[in-house]
Amino acid sequence: MSRAQLYFEDLEPGTGMTGAVHVIDRGELVAFAQAWDPLPFHVDEAAGVAAFGSLTAPGLYMLAIKQRLVHQLPPLAVLASMGYDEVRFLAPLRPGDSVTLKVEWLERRPSNSKPDRGIVKIRFSLVTLAGTTVLSHMDTVLVRRRPT
Amino acid sequence: MSRAQLYFEDLEPGTGMTGAVHVIDRGELVAFAQAWDPLPFHVDEAAGVAAFGSLTAPGLYMLAIKQRLVHQLPPLAVLASMGYDEVRFLAPLRPGDSVTLKVEWLERRPSNSKPDRGIVKIRFSLVTLAGTTVLSHMDTVLVRRRPT
Repeated sequence: MSRAQLYFEDLEPGTGMTGAVHVIDRGELVAFAQAWDPLPFHVDEAAGVAAFGSLTAPGLYMLAIKQRLVHQLPPLAVLASMGYDEVRFLAPLRPGDSVTLKVEWLERRPSNSKPDRGIVKIRFSLVTLAGTTVLSHMDTVLVRRRPT
Repeated sequence: MSRAQLYFEDLEPGTGMTGAVHVIDRGELVAFAQAWDPLPFHVDEAAGVAAFGSLTAPGLYMLAIKQRLVHQLPPLAVLASMGYDEVRFLAPLRPGDSVTLKVEWLERRPSNSKPDRGIVKIRFSLVTLAGTTVLSHMDTVLVRRRPT
């Protein structure tokens, strides 16, 4: 990787990062839904319009977009995710929507058992240009400490 | 849909369903990871072996497999997901692993505001044939009541 990695020490609670704008592509959304979550209102225009005024993205697609956008930010020295909490699908995500990823470091503590790592609680939010948060969740991850 | 839908009334807490066996395909896993979460140990055999003894699936891929397997079970009359809680990536999922989806209805209550629906809390688990749960999470969904 050409970009500097962020280590445990860099993730100061109360700070965070915001990514670039990403536009939701209709074709990708529908293909993803067909492969993984083919409910009518995710894959069929008429069904989507009837239910929600347009096609809407699966929650899983929101999580996938979030994960892709994570990789456009400076990389964290993540060893593993311990799990997600409070995953909320707060508003429909629709083809053509412009979203940005907001990342906040909420809490951190060094590992009790392994001196080379720490535990960081992150909040990820996917926010439209209009200011609507469509997805948010916490992620608790193991992150390397900066090598000495 | 040709199969009978399951409504709110059918989801008796303490009961559930188990799906068919699904074998994790290496090519699909790697292609998915390349598109959505291209960490080295998800996409590069040597990096996977060094970190975890083999390639491992992104947590997002575990969630995607779960969602696909949901569609192989009798369909629920779901209106929306209110969110996931306690998403846990409990063990590595590897190419060639055989998994089944276990679904448990944990709690349900009628909607206070809308008589045509209720709220059901579900636990989904992805379990290997060896009995290891690799993914589990709760999903709180709005489900239609049986039309009278």
